[in-house]
Amino acid sequence: MSRCLITGGRIVTAADDYRADILISGGRVSMIADAIPPEDGMQVHDASGLMVLPGGVDVHTHLETFIGPARTADTVDSATRAAAFGGTTTVIDFTRQPPGKSPVAGYGEWRGLAAKSCVDIGVHIILTDVKADMYEGMKELMDKEGVTSFKVFMIRTGPETIDDGQLQQIMETTAEHGALTCVHAENGPILARNIADNLAAENTHPKFHSLSRPNTVEGEATARAIRLSEMAEAPLYVVHVTAAEAVGAITEARDRGQTVYGETCPQYLFLTKDAYETPGFEAAKYVMSPPLRSEEDQEALWRALATGHLAVVSTDHCPFNFSAKTKGLEHSKELGLDSFTKIPNGAPGIETRIAMVYDGGVRQGRIGLNRFVELMATAPAKLFGLFPAKGTVAVGSDGDLALFDPKESWTVSAAGHHSDIDYSLFEGHRVTGRVKKVFLRGEMIVDGETWLGRPGMGEYLARGPSGMVV
Amino acid sequence: MSRCLITGGRIVTAADDYRADILISGGRVSMIADAIPPEDGMQVHDASGLMVLPGGVDVHTHLETFIGPARTADTVDSATRAAAFGGTTTVIDFTRQPPGKSPVAGYGEWRGLAAKSCVDIGVHIILTDVKADMYEGMKELMDKEGVTSFKVFMIRTGPETIDDGQLQQIMETTAEHGALTCVHAENGPILARNIADNLAAENTHPKFHSLSRPNTVEGEATARAIRLSEMAEAPLYVVHVTAAEAVGAITEARDRGQTVYGETCPQYLFLTKDAYETPGFEAAKYVMSPPLRSEEDQEALWRALATGHLAVVSTDHCPFNFSAKTKGLEHSKELGLDSFTKIPNGAPGIETRIAMVYDGGVRQGRIGLNRFVELMATAPAKLFGLFPAKGTVAVGSDGDLALFDPKESWTVSAAGHHSDIDYSLFEGHRVTGRVKKVFLRGEMIVDGETWLGRPGMGEYLARGPSGMVV
Amino acid sequence: MSRCLITGGRIVTAADDYRADILISGGRVSMIADAIPPEDGMQVHDASGLMVLPGGVDVHTHLETFIGPARTADTVDSATRAAAFGGTTTVIDFTRQPPGKSPVAGYGEWRGLAAKSCVDIGVHIILTDVKADMYEGMKELMDKEGVTSFKVFMIRTGPETIDDGQLQQIMETTAEHGALTCVHAENGPILARNIADNLAAENTHPKFHSLSRPNTVEGEATARAIRLSEMAEAPLYVVHVTAAEAVGAITEARDRGQTVYGETCPQYLFLTKDAYETPGFEAAKYVMSPPLRSEEDQEALWRALATGHLAVVSTDHCPFNFSAKTKGLEHSKELGLDSFTKIPNGAPGIETRIAMVYDGGVRQGRIGLNRFVELMATAPAKLFGLFPAKGTVAVGSDGDLALFDPKESWTVSAAGHHSDIDYSLFEGHRVTGRVKKVFLRGEMIVDGETWLGRPGMGEYLARGPSGMVV
Amino acid sequence: MSRCLITGGRIVTAADDYRADILISGGRVSMIADAIPPEDGMQVHDASGLMVLPGGVDVHTHLETFIGPARTADTVDSATRAAAFGGTTTVIDFTRQPPGKSPVAGYGEWRGLAAKSCVDIGVHIILTDVKADMYEGMKELMDKEGVTSFKVFMIRTGPETIDDGQLQQIMETTAEHGALTCVHAENGPILARNIADNLAAENTHPKFHSLSRPNTVEGEATARAIRLSEMAEAPLYVVHVTAAEAVGAITEARDRGQTVYGETCPQYLFLTKDAYETPGFEAAKYVMSPPLRSEEDQEALWRALATGHLAVVSTDHCPFNFSAKTKGLEHSKELGLDSFTKIPNGAPGIETRIAMVYDGGVRQGRIGLNRFVELMATAPAKLFGLFPAKGTVAVGSDGDLALFDPKESWTVSAAGHHSDIDYSLFEGHRVTGRVKKVFLRGEMIVDGETWLGRPGMGEYLARGPSGMVV
Repeated sequence: MSRCLITGGRIVTAADDYRADILISGGRVSMIADAIPPEDGMQVHDASGLMVLPGGVDVHTHLETFIGPARTADTVDSATRAAAFGGTTTVIDFTRQPPGKSPVAGYGEWRGLAAKSCVDIGVHIILTDVKADMYEGMKELMDKEGVTSFKVFMIRTGPETIDDGQLQQIMETTAEHGALTCVHAENGPILARNIADNLAAENTHPKFHSLSRPNTVEGEATARAIRLSEMAEAPLYVVHVTAAEAVGAITEARDRGQTVYGETCPQYLFLTKDAYETPGFEAAKYVMSPPLRSEEDQEALWRALATGHLAVVSTDHCPFNFSAKTKGLEHSKELGLDSFTKIPNGAPGIETRIAMVYDGGVRQGRIGLNRFVELMATAPAKLFGLFPAKGTVAVGSDGDLALFDPKESWTVSAAGHHSDIDYSLFEGHRVTGRVKKVFLRGEMIVDGETWLGRPGMGEYLARGPSGMVV
Repeated sequence: MSRCLITGGRIVTAADDYRADILISGGRVSMIADAIPPEDGMQVHDASGLMVLPGGVDVHTHLETFIGPARTADTVDSATRAAAFGGTTTVIDFTRQPPGKSPVAGYGEWRGLAAKSCVDIGVHIILTDVKADMYEGMKELMDKEGVTSFKVFMIRTGPETIDDGQLQQIMETTAEHGALTCVHAENGPILARNIADNLAAENTHPKFHSLSRPNTVEGEATARAIRLSEMAEAPLYVVHVTAAEAVGAITEARDRGQTVYGETCPQYLFLTKDAYETPGFEAAKYVMSPPLRSEEDQEALWRALATGHLAVVSTDHCPFNFSAKTKGLEHSKELGLDSFTKIPNGAPGIETRIAMVYDGGVRQGRIGLNRFVELMATAPAKLFGLFPAKGTVAVGSDGDLALFDPKESWTVSAAGHHSDIDYSLFEGHRVTGRVKKVFLRGEMIVDGETWLGRPGMGEYLARGPSGMVV
Repeated sequence: MSRCLITGGRIVTAADDYRADILISGGRVSMIADAIPPEDGMQVHDASGLMVLPGGVDVHTHLETFIGPARTADTVDSATRAAAFGGTTTVIDFTRQPPGKSPVAGYGEWRGLAAKSCVDIGVHIILTDVKADMYEGMKELMDKEGVTSFKVFMIRTGPETIDDGQLQQIMETTAEHGALTCVHAENGPILARNIADNLAAENTHPKFHSLSRPNTVEGEATARAIRLSEMAEAPLYVVHVTAAEAVGAITEARDRGQTVYGETCPQYLFLTKDAYETPGFEAAKYVMSPPLRSEEDQEALWRALATGHLAVVSTDHCPFNFSAKTKGLEHSKELGLDSFTKIPNGAPGIETRIAMVYDGGVRQGRIGLNRFVELMATAPAKLFGLFPAKGTVAVGSDGDLALFDPKESWTVSAAGHHSDIDYSLFEGHRVTGRVKKVFLRGEMIVDGETWLGRPGMGEYLARGPSGMVV
Repeated sequence: MSRCLITGGRIVTAADDYRADILISGGRVSMIADAIPPEDGMQVHDASGLMVLPGGVDVHTHLETFIGPARTADTVDSATRAAAFGGTTTVIDFTRQPPGKSPVAGYGEWRGLAAKSCVDIGVHIILTDVKADMYEGMKELMDKEGVTSFKVFMIRTGPETIDDGQLQQIMETTAEHGALTCVHAENGPILARNIADNLAAENTHPKFHSLSRPNTVEGEATARAIRLSEMAEAPLYVVHVTAAEAVGAITEARDRGQTVYGETCPQYLFLTKDAYETPGFEAAKYVMSPPLRSEEDQEALWRALATGHLAVVSTDHCPFNFSAKTKGLEHSKELGLDSFTKIPNGAPGIETRIAMVYDGGVRQGRIGLNRFVELMATAPAKLFGLFPAKGTVAVGSDGDLALFDPKESWTVSAAGHHSDIDYSLFEGHRVTGRVKKVFLRGEMIVDGETWLGRPGMGEYLARGPSGMVV
């Protein structure tokens, strides 16, 4: 049985911060001690001067998926390799219930794709059709396949609409199984109308994507989802919270005792809607939903990360190339050259999450170091039924570790990243703090710029019930 | 060097929950591992079926002190022994700047008393006199003696009054040194008037203590202290928060980004002001400041413990016997037989904190297990500069552990407790969860009902700066 | 030209309170003075000891209408006669856009019925079908017919659904014409689900009407309507606010500067959901939407009436007999004997509004006398474009007056009321304050128990733009 | 008995807006009618094209008073003449309980000065010394002299300090007599410290007046006063509210049902703290307490005027010349040439209140016309026991009227005003809306630029209890 010894590092968890050696045996942490003598057959890694963090847990990705005619540019293997380079060793991906089919069918297809993953991987199912054996499928997935979270797009109009009554029923069904309901909270009919109005006015520039989705559209839907979950007596997880109004609704609910968790993403913490004012088609790089917001919204997000009203920072990695030349039109934002409504929604970011949040959060004094680890790994692992295998550094946990140099400064750039994407949201952003080595269940998969992992080494994660994060 | 091995326990920290063996060498945790082979000279303790918790940290006690003519009934040694039986291995006690003298003088006297402690012990200084070299004394204590927290009684009128301007200056001075300002938040002049009115009306029953101190008196002072700390740009720690109005003020401030921490105590979580309606002098047992509140206030406190708006549960152990016969009039509530104003303020509780909060919090589903440990040990250790030596179970931390049986049911009673006090606030209260063995720096000091410790084995804790708890 | 002189009364308006004589000439107040000498041809009425109030304005009635198989028990003439006895001289009734037809068609039909009115009468249109020339019809009604308010039922599911985008567009269209959008705020899909669940469980008792409509269903929809009106930059009027959650949403919006008005009704101020616990079918008397709430909700409503966060008290008079024997099954609650879903929704109250609110509001010290008049007459007249002809006592205003004896005590009972209904919501309720004489444009129509008016004397009110009430 | 007839005007009250003639007989409005035929002996004034407003009620002035070595530049007669030119016919002035003497003594002295007033005048007493028969004096003034309001400076430190307990007792005593407690809400000890710090740093420029008084100093004291009044179960009137934090505290209290009224002044609505950045000593013109705030604060104030959370706009007229040359050093800001602490606090404004608020409030769409009249006249008259004699246009009320041309544009300037002051806060401010004629009890005292009144014609106003403004 292979053993891996990491010596002299500064181990940081959601609660702790200390120096010790770590021994990983059979993929799991088997010992943490002052000084562990190396033995034959151990791979020994010196972590002096480095932080030893639990491998990151990114619970919001869209890998190798299609949205209408568009196809994400990353494949499962390229994206998960990039994740690993960024210190993330666990991903929970999204797939959808296919139109007219059971959620189980979607899950089955996804498992095929997921077999290529370089890091451990689980899945949430996006529910789309209450008629197609949806509730039965959900129960089967929860009971047998370890799929313990579902997402509803409150944004839908038309045949995929899930109305508020159905959403409440989903919440109840999910909660009965200890699972977690996630919502994409934007008001669908209002969006539809705003978009139609913009098209009617021949407003086609990418910025009209943003202008069609004001803060209130998200604030309203978030508040509504919270009321539904209150009636369902079910916990709620709001994905990619961006607007101060949404933060406000979550804060108000939590302060009166409701179980609501919020997630945000680095792009909402570091970029603003000024990006949409970039002339020409460049602004398409930032077309995502919800869109980028204002500095005031950023402040609200950071504040909520500090108080705990937001519990997780994920990436919503859903990347398309900027240029059709890179890999073909169907993988690129240029599908929407003539209209913002056709621009594939989403952006890359799976590799930069940990470094960006460390730099902007810990180094800027907005959050503490333990809280940083909680946001990057512990809280998402607990909420999505992966703890304590994932999300911490403790005896018995998986040997997923990221060795992080808090002092190295570097510049984010598409030139150096490992996604199969032709741009970075944070191009040119200077950060301090860098992932140096990454271990997946005790096996080193990243060593500086060297990739040591391989597609398929990631395991499927059958998840347990959602855990309390209080 | 003595070594102590604890095997098979379920280790719970503020973040983690796993099974492993723990080795303590030289008083510090030196190894945590799947299975540690016993060696000669190791004391081995089987923790199967038990939780292994970090030793409790109680940051609010008044040991062997006097208040006017009254003297607390416990001595430093009896109280710290009781603390140990309850799973608490670290205490931060309060002493006061003597009238007309430097805070350093008060500290010196206290060190004499503290030498008898059975558990590790630090001290906060209560500031009373700005003129007596107060700021110089504070700096000396922070820089040289590891006293990194000070308390102000907003309750004072007369010569010991510290006005709002002085309080703000104290906050600034403290924050400049990375230390923490604590406030007892009740409005002094309003209290004085209410008390005078009750005396004028010949209202002498103990319940008038409570009726003189309505929620608003605490709510007002808490809100004021928060505004002062906002102006001082200093963190604030509010001791013994009891009123929903105070929780509201703290919540509002935290939600807009201010650094405010709140503490409550078990008596406020489990008892209500109905206790003051006990006929005769019995109600004197519950005379403490602030007084017990309503069920609605209890709900607000529990909610805030769950969201993190309250950060700590301490005891405010400040015990007097109920009967003068037990140990003499000066140690008893009977000093106030003829008037509530003469009843010594305070109550016992140093031994029951961990069991009560486990039972009422974790078992009732109000807080999670990790959060429980955070409240009992980790957060107070961080806030008061003791982390990571205290407050967690991790390699390098002190070998302070409480072995806790989460299934044992027992009944709280003065008959069985270890304080030198003739009553318990929670007499007859049935709880599940009990401390079984306690270790101080690797030495077992409690084994079931057996006391193995000794006065003086507790060390003085020179504390570091207050740490961020986000 | 007929002239009417009212002497010696205490005139009370939304601002004033003084003693003077009033002369009405040609239907309008022509003079208010210390002492007006009677002249030949004047009808002289002594108002000594009485308050002279502006005739009440009730902006929420459903007269002689049908809801599915049910028909309201009052006719236009019986209901408006009852209104007059209660001191109300202006009614704004609701009618609906017929399925598949323009709103103009509904208005036309309604004008036929309204010709029988005993008091002056206007109409709001309930919008039901965006496809049937709705926007064109709205504009025609606003521009040509003096219909300057529209209502949307957020409660609808199925073909009459108006989605959030359409509602926003309605708000915008309405605001552009200075008109006002009204919403019935309950979440339709949630109601539908709750009702279906109750039916599935064979819960047929009337109380399940209430249990299907928890506070949150109203609170959610109110908050949503407010967000939509914020996006539409349009004022909003929320009819029959009942839940503290809805009051909270309105309060929050107004405090941040949004133009939102709320209305409540006496039944929500004086009755509670305990009424649904009445055994047998008796509880059907209280089946209305939203349902009766708790005492805490009542307190929130009264508070908001005092602060101005609620602007109007109307009746939502929509009466059905309790017994089928009275006037036939189609006019009675007994349509729902076998299931709460078939009970016609609505209750009587058009006659008791002023006396109930005077007694419960002014006499109980919850609101002042001027505020009472504002709620009963001035604010609704301003909001719905009837001011200053209606809603006040001032030179130039219509001679619509209610002479009110603030000292007379009496008992509310169906036995004495003037609606064609067999029960009263407030049966046996003892109140002090009673309408004694009522004048419509200078003509006395009520004199104690004597009816002097006649069907058809009420005029149609072509209304102007909605006025600011700040 | 003289009679005065005003024809053809547009009468605007807090509720009404209509055209009619007004007859004033014996100083009181005796008739309002469509058309009143002129008779012999009537003075007839054509008000065509003009609004007829109730004479303004300014409840916050400091006339002919001294503050330390400084003396206000206006005398009672010059200031009240200026008030009249601005449309204000009622003033409630402040005087103080002299150190060591009864409040009655201060009242007696003030009556001597007030005998010169050109408009009707009442007085509030500023309480300064609880020991000097204060409560007895208050009762005498309330019972016998019609002084039904008292103010406490929460700002005091040293011998004039009134502590929170005493303030609460004052509130109770006042409320028992139906009178009203007013507070100047700033935290005294914090101000003292901030000022001392600035002096120690040799910060003497006038802007340090502002920098010593941050928003939080006012926000804290306002919140505290509200809590005290809650405990006292007494209504509260907060003078000159300026900070958003104070507005927030008032809003929160009112929304939960507490009786709190707030006042602001035009300077806080139209000027910002940028004024303190004026180079040299010019900034001294704006030295007042509280100081000018930010645009965000202005928005909060306007919003609260619209919702009713603020009830009154007064002037706090307390003028000093800018230059010592004008009338001597003791009347000028130059007393503080060497230090901001010596600059007499206060500014002129008694003449411009109505025009400024009309222009900035009504014309800008922030408040309605009725609300404007309520703020200028009706609400202050009701709150301070002068209604209905003052504050409205109604039969029986005093014939105090301001004829106002809503279309005339003019420029505010010290060159044209009627105070005996050498500068205006609003110099060069262009406004639309101007007072043209003013009547005091039926006697015209202002006719365009012509002064027809005389010192001493103002009567002392013995006031009644404070009235409810809901």
